[in-house]
Amino acid sequence: MALRSEEIERVLKRLETVPGLEGAALVSSDGFMLASALPPEVSEDRVAAMGAAIVSIGERVNKELERGAFDMALISGSNGYTLATGAGIEAFLIVLASKNAKLGWVFLEVRRAAEELARILGR
Amino acid sequence: MALRSEEIERVLKRLETVPGLEGAALVSSDGFMLASALPPEVSEDRVAAMGAAIVSIGERVNKELERGAFDMALISGSNGYTLATGAGIEAFLIVLASKNAKLGWVFLEVRRAAEELARILGR
Repeated sequence: MALRSEEIERVLKRLETVPGLEGAALVSSDGFMLASALPPEVSEDRVAAMGAAIVSIGERVNKELERGAFDMALISGSNGYTLATGAGIEAFLIVLASKNAKLGWVFLEVRRAAEELARILGR
Repeated sequence: MALRSEEIERVLKRLETVPGLEGAALVSSDGFMLASALPPEVSEDRVAAMGAAIVSIGERVNKELERGAFDMALISGSNGYTLATGAGIEAFLIVLASKNAKLGWVFLEVRRAAEELARILGR
């Protein structure tokens, strides 16, 4: 179990090396924090709560508008981005990025990290 | 007033020419449909309601996580995308796109259309 949490930390820390990416957190589907690599000024509880809210509305929208299974949600603001994607069936990954992040790169790395986290959690 | 609604229709119809873009709707900030160019099988009421829900959660997330003023939200599903962005202070634009749409192009054209719609509504 210690090994598994170390592997999760490693995946989250690696995400932070993507230019413009400010922090990442792995949250259970109930909205509880599993692991995080967030800047000290960012509240873990808020990230978990907002992540759960984004995924919930994403699933609802996809169902009502027949867009299929939830894949990812991106919210863009004048100061930066919030991104949420599933990491297996029991968790999701939330990422904060600055306005100058290259979204294509962020999407790619976030997808890769989410797949890796799903594999680690599914063991 | 007739002229204004014709101009809005024209902007929405032009959006439909973007490859992969399936439909667009202009919704008031109260969640009421103002104008739409949607496929016949898509419910206007559902689009308006889901659009209002996306914008509401987007504003909330940006506030709680200090991402600045709401700009845009994208929800991705296995069958396609839903995109919402502000069109002035009184309305927002909702767009449905298929999975093979080029997101960069969609973002560009949706931003352009939203600015144009804001100008038309603000007159």
